[in-house]
Amino acid sequence: MISSLTTTTTQQTQHLHGESPPGDDITILNAEEAFLPPLFDLHRRFPRLRIVLEHCTTAAAVEAVKACGPNVVGTITPHHMLITIDNWANDPFNYCKPVAKLPADRLALITTAASGNPKFFLGTDSAPHALSAKRGGGDGMGKCAAGVFTQPYATQLVLDAFEGAVEKGILKSEALSRDVLTGFLGEFGRKFYGEPASKRKIRITAGQDRIMEALKFGKDEEKIVPFRRKEPVYTLEWI
Amino acid sequence: MISSLTTTTTQQTQHLHGESPPGDDITILNAEEAFLPPLFDLHRRFPRLRIVLEHCTTAAAVEAVKACGPNVVGTITPHHMLITIDNWANDPFNYCKPVAKLPADRLALITTAASGNPKFFLGTDSAPHALSAKRGGGDGMGKCAAGVFTQPYATQLVLDAFEGAVEKGILKSEALSRDVLTGFLGEFGRKFYGEPASKRKIRITAGQDRIMEALKFGKDEEKIVPFRRKEPVYTLEWI
Repeated sequence: MISSLTTTTTQQTQHLHGESPPGDDITILNAEEAFLPPLFDLHRRFPRLRIVLEHCTTAAAVEAVKACGPNVVGTITPHHMLITIDNWANDPFNYCKPVAKLPADRLALITTAASGNPKFFLGTDSAPHALSAKRGGGDGMGKCAAGVFTQPYATQLVLDAFEGAVEKGILKSEALSRDVLTGFLGEFGRKFYGEPASKRKIRITAGQDRIMEALKFGKDEEKIVPFRRKEPVYTLEWI
Repeated sequence: MISSLTTTTTQQTQHLHGESPPGDDITILNAEEAFLPPLFDLHRRFPRLRIVLEHCTTAAAVEAVKACGPNVVGTITPHHMLITIDNWANDPFNYCKPVAKLPADRLALITTAASGNPKFFLGTDSAPHALSAKRGGGDGMGKCAAGVFTQPYATQLVLDAFEGAVEKGILKSEALSRDVLTGFLGEFGRKFYGEPASKRKIRITAGQDRIMEALKFGKDEEKIVPFRRKEPVYTLEWI
């Protein structure tokens, strides 16, 4: 089963898109959970292999990463911290693989990202698909490409997710310390990959910014529609 | 909660789109199951009220209808007998509300439709949305209209679903008697609504027919894309 997965190896680290292939009882909804037994097996057989379970979308995946040793970590995307199945069902610009799951899963991702556990850090999985690919190709009758485009707004979207959880009483704002935020947004990942700590800083301010409606590219009228287009967003500056 | 539902009353019969409104723990995946306690409550309080739970999509809904008295029946669509969540996630022409659920749910719909239980009969819920509405409106950036267009092929699609289940060993072909087929496809419904039995007949043959690619309508280049466009389909004739 492992051999059929999308994997990337960097610096002796295995990056896994952890979903089992479709089958009689495997759907896009439980494909990630179905992959957890093979993940445990892989980790048991190769305990020194460094594994990144990319874009965790379920409470089960988060718990699995926690249950493994320090060589197994997980990334979490901004969009999976913000949406559930209801958001992508009728909206291709929220549709990605693995698909966003249930409210309890989203909650688990947010609380894990806010926990300061260095086994979890941001991985955007941002995918700049063309509008036409999102809309079924030239005749509009094909399938929808999977992926959401968040890259310019990744940090701000994570903060939005945290803020929403604070407003709902799910997180306490004092839990979101500078160490927790910088750890999840970058330092936990840098440490795992053996990179030195970043010396650059960002400043986030609440202003009048909105997410762009679309990003033009290439020839013709092709464009990329970002996640949460036109919605208010924090302003981010490198300082 | 009942007052917020989509309902239609005909001949003292209440037709319910049985999904609870979205909420913290209610998604499009469990909205139908969440509606079953209100359904039981309605039936308990008004046992003589004739209720049609339209377009059942889950094993739970089927079991709920069975558990109620004879005044509560359920309809099943052809498309819910053929698809699951994986089929609509990236394909707007398979996207409808209630959404198609999991393989076990699809199986329950097929076996129920083939059981000869007069509490269940075909209801197509066919919805001829324009291609543009399926593709997010004029700029292609809006949401996808919910509904699939099956009407010209409803009978043939049901037979396809049955045939697939026979091929997989889930149904025995001898279970699909003329009474079972005519009952599910029409007579159980006519009886429930107090209509006389139909005197018209159809003939189904295996030929070279394929489902149309698109149905043109209105002005401009507007069209409707049917469910399973261009796929082989039985030929149906009224005789």
